[in-house]
Amino acid sequence: MVEEIKVSFIGAGTVGRSLIAMLDGKHHLIERKYGIRFKLVAIFEYDGALIDEQGVDIQSLVYGKNMRRMDAWKPGITALETIESLDFDLLVEMTPTNVKTGEPAFSHIKKALISGKDVVSSNKGPFLLHFDEIMGLSRQTGKKVRFEATVGSCIPVLQSWRTSMHGNKVLRIEAILNGTSNYILTRMANEKLDFSIALKEAQERGYAEADPTLDIDGHDAAGKLVILANALMGMARTNKDVKVEGITHINPEAINMASKEGFVIKHLGIADEDGTLEVKPFLIPKNSPLGAGITGTLNAVRIVTDLSGEIILVGHGAGGDEAASAILSDMIDIYLKS
Amino acid sequence: MVEEIKVSFIGAGTVGRSLIAMLDGKHHLIERKYGIRFKLVAIFEYDGALIDEQGVDIQSLVYGKNMRRMDAWKPGITALETIESLDFDLLVEMTPTNVKTGEPAFSHIKKALISGKDVVSSNKGPFLLHFDEIMGLSRQTGKKVRFEATVGSCIPVLQSWRTSMHGNKVLRIEAILNGTSNYILTRMANEKLDFSIALKEAQERGYAEADPTLDIDGHDAAGKLVILANALMGMARTNKDVKVEGITHINPEAINMASKEGFVIKHLGIADEDGTLEVKPFLIPKNSPLGAGITGTLNAVRIVTDLSGEIILVGHGAGGDEAASAILSDMIDIYLKS
Repeated sequence: MVEEIKVSFIGAGTVGRSLIAMLDGKHHLIERKYGIRFKLVAIFEYDGALIDEQGVDIQSLVYGKNMRRMDAWKPGITALETIESLDFDLLVEMTPTNVKTGEPAFSHIKKALISGKDVVSSNKGPFLLHFDEIMGLSRQTGKKVRFEATVGSCIPVLQSWRTSMHGNKVLRIEAILNGTSNYILTRMANEKLDFSIALKEAQERGYAEADPTLDIDGHDAAGKLVILANALMGMARTNKDVKVEGITHINPEAINMASKEGFVIKHLGIADEDGTLEVKPFLIPKNSPLGAGITGTLNAVRIVTDLSGEIILVGHGAGGDEAASAILSDMIDIYLKS
Repeated sequence: MVEEIKVSFIGAGTVGRSLIAMLDGKHHLIERKYGIRFKLVAIFEYDGALIDEQGVDIQSLVYGKNMRRMDAWKPGITALETIESLDFDLLVEMTPTNVKTGEPAFSHIKKALISGKDVVSSNKGPFLLHFDEIMGLSRQTGKKVRFEATVGSCIPVLQSWRTSMHGNKVLRIEAILNGTSNYILTRMANEKLDFSIALKEAQERGYAEADPTLDIDGHDAAGKLVILANALMGMARTNKDVKVEGITHINPEAINMASKEGFVIKHLGIADEDGTLEVKPFLIPKNSPLGAGITGTLNAVRIVTDLSGEIILVGHGAGGDEAASAILSDMIDIYLKS
């Protein structure tokens, strides 16, 4: 028996478009292997929405058609006013992150849960500011919330913890959570570049934003660290609780000195059961799992548990396809019959 | 509501004793967090069994009491003749591995499934020889089989794949699956030791068996590779299908030459969707996730997928506690209500 799940997207940027292409390319596999058929009934954007209760025309979108020129486009309609009344099962929240307010994603997620919809989100904001409130609402309503893509993108840290380390207690997390800062530090180490040159290169290659502040000052990593600490260690913290130090003052001399002693400098987030929550540059032995092998835009999370010792997960923590892959896995997992 | 699950162990060696200690130490957590109470009703050994339908006296075992001196000890009783008639829900198979026949574990597992019992196993033998038959029997009987501990011990490779990468297809696996051979190669590289010296040191430290043949000739890794390839890539292969080359001919000169060019030599298992299945020494860039950072007895598995790119999982792939942790997680996962 194939179960049909009606889905609404909010946000049709890089991630949303990747996800639409995956739903199109993988729909046979998803039906056959998991017994699920996702019917996309709405895509909300900032200036309107594509709404079709029979299922929006995914193929045309994949072929590049502008959704605003499609018959089902309703200009001016907002997600917030529509979530409750529209008939669907799952909200996929992919709006841009606002780390100060968590909005509009936080309101979307609350509204969806209260209206009896499950939620998958790639948006860090609500989870680094209002983790406890969202989880409480999920318990109250019996509706599920998944957010793998918010930390390390497709690296399955949250889901592995939920499903693969039962009985364990997490004692400590050490993680490289920002690909931009890791790319800069890698290039500085390997090519003896100054910080500013490495940053410029990262921007030219599309690995850093025009305004890279959140990445290089550690606040992006801090937000992800909070989500990890809350989800894996039962903390109830926000990004304001993280002591943060950036990498702008790291110079080639420091990297060189570290290297001579067998270390690399990595921008590490650390959460410890003693309450420590910090992001700062650390000396890490080159020849260790979080050391010189975590190059470029890779992310890595080291989870120290009481029974299993250390488990390290590594992968590409950014990119439209990577985030979409994490979202797709979350979407399937919610409706999977074991 | 707490669900009581009646469990039988086969094997009370290092792993079995670790698991008994964990069940004792974690039973409050397991009840509170997962709603499960495991009642251990039998422990089978080669020369008899401890059987108590009210639950065997775990505390006395944890405090070191010899089970053969306990009232509930029944000398001469075998698992194979008892599995069907004894009232329990879950068989935990922890007998020593036989890679030629898979026995007696294979018979235990078949008998348990046919008798309506779920199975968790740490024994590679049955899975590298009879993967398809076991999975077929699991589907027929509707009983579950979990075997995370057979590959990389507590590194959650199998379960992460089952639960955290839905929608993905695995294109390729590259993995360091034997801690003994990786320890030897690491020591040879870091201390310029000859193979025979490094092996002797590994034996003295307890990282290598008195007869290390299966570890250093690649056959242990080959067995794990087959299980990975079958479970993650839908292959139906056995350990006889793997092309195997050991590490005994690796010398310090080769390691040194590789090092000068920025490489380390790692004993790698590779499964590719083109059908390749091989274990042999490979040159790996030092500064890559499977490179110089995977030191000593660490294991590492790189999974290349179509949607998520590469995901690498690292951890300690051997040890009684590590295997027991993997088994405990499997035990809980079978009965967990999502």
